[in-house]
Amino acid sequence: MRLRNKPWANDRIKAHPQYVPGQPEQLKGQWQSRFAKNQPLHIEVGSGKGQFIVEMAKAHPDINYISIEIQASALVSILDKQIEEDLPNLQILLGDGRNLTEYFAPGEISLVYLNFSDPWPKKKHAKRRLTSPYFLAQYEGILPTGGQIHFKTDNRGLFEYSLAAMSQYGMILNQVWLDLHASDFEGNIMTEYEEKFSARGQVIYRLEAAFKVGK
Amino acid sequence: MRLRNKPWANDRIKAHPQYVPGQPEQLKGQWQSRFAKNQPLHIEVGSGKGQFIVEMAKAHPDINYISIEIQASALVSILDKQIEEDLPNLQILLGDGRNLTEYFAPGEISLVYLNFSDPWPKKKHAKRRLTSPYFLAQYEGILPTGGQIHFKTDNRGLFEYSLAAMSQYGMILNQVWLDLHASDFEGNIMTEYEEKFSARGQVIYRLEAAFKVGK
Repeated sequence: MRLRNKPWANDRIKAHPQYVPGQPEQLKGQWQSRFAKNQPLHIEVGSGKGQFIVEMAKAHPDINYISIEIQASALVSILDKQIEEDLPNLQILLGDGRNLTEYFAPGEISLVYLNFSDPWPKKKHAKRRLTSPYFLAQYEGILPTGGQIHFKTDNRGLFEYSLAAMSQYGMILNQVWLDLHASDFEGNIMTEYEEKFSARGQVIYRLEAAFKVGK
Repeated sequence: MRLRNKPWANDRIKAHPQYVPGQPEQLKGQWQSRFAKNQPLHIEVGSGKGQFIVEMAKAHPDINYISIEIQASALVSILDKQIEEDLPNLQILLGDGRNLTEYFAPGEISLVYLNFSDPWPKKKHAKRRLTSPYFLAQYEGILPTGGQIHFKTDNRGLFEYSLAAMSQYGMILNQVWLDLHASDFEGNIMTEYEEKFSARGQVIYRLEAAFKVGK
């Protein structure tokens, strides 16, 4: 996501350590201590402006959520939402999806959400896609056996790539939607991007995939 | 495919045993004897009127093809094309995809094509879909280790089902196309159905999947 640069973003983030911990890697294995209740922990990698994760946290008080975003200028939009909502089941992590195994212990996360991540359409940039083998290994390293990824995108090339990449990594596709908004899927919470592009008639793809038990 | 009934179809088929063997199960393990050359053997399950398989056989003289169709009224259209072409690398099998392991020996077939097969949209009919576990076991039983299925459809529900069914069966998705005609895929040969419905703007889906080596 391209955003207007916000030079004041980092100061604003530092002023709210109760929502955005300053040294997230020190919480590895202890993230439940940051929440009101000890309950399953789901993360979104690349939350953008945060509409999805904030609405998920409101809709599912029985789940703890961590919103991960690498860009401070985007993260402040998530932070502003959380300052207003003060949700006890939402934490925000300023960090890089490449380093998930530094932030989280094995099995600490129950589910990983990926929404409308950068398609990196050039083949030479395929490694940067959030569904490339390097990233899949990161998710596997923090999920329990059989742990799941739920992924949405409107980008055909990225979805084609992701289906094959996950399968070749050894994951199992539990379910696939090739036009989510035309399906009977219930409880879909849209990202800002999804609202905008689906209104223009763009098809939304979705999948749920699991790391194989006993791999 | 719904077709006009052709009461004379069976007589016409019986009159051309050089193209349509009368007792295909007796050729199990010996299909190469029906062809001019001993070379890789590909089958299409559910050939309809046969445009795909006849054009494939013309385009790839180094491959032997068997066109399988259960409806005599459709098969006569394939037969008429083959009477005209007399291709040395095409045989036609009047039979049921449910019985592939009765027609072919393990590993006798190198590749299975499925094109625009009946979507059987009702959940209670899922077992009849040509990508359901029963059928996948049939294909596995006649393919070598790592053998492939190439599948095309315009039916979204069937493609969604097939991606998950193949993955859950233990197959690996080698490549997926979510809009074949907008892609850079080369050498696509269209079925009669594909020509008609893609001209109306219908998206065509395609996948290549392999049975796992050492499963």
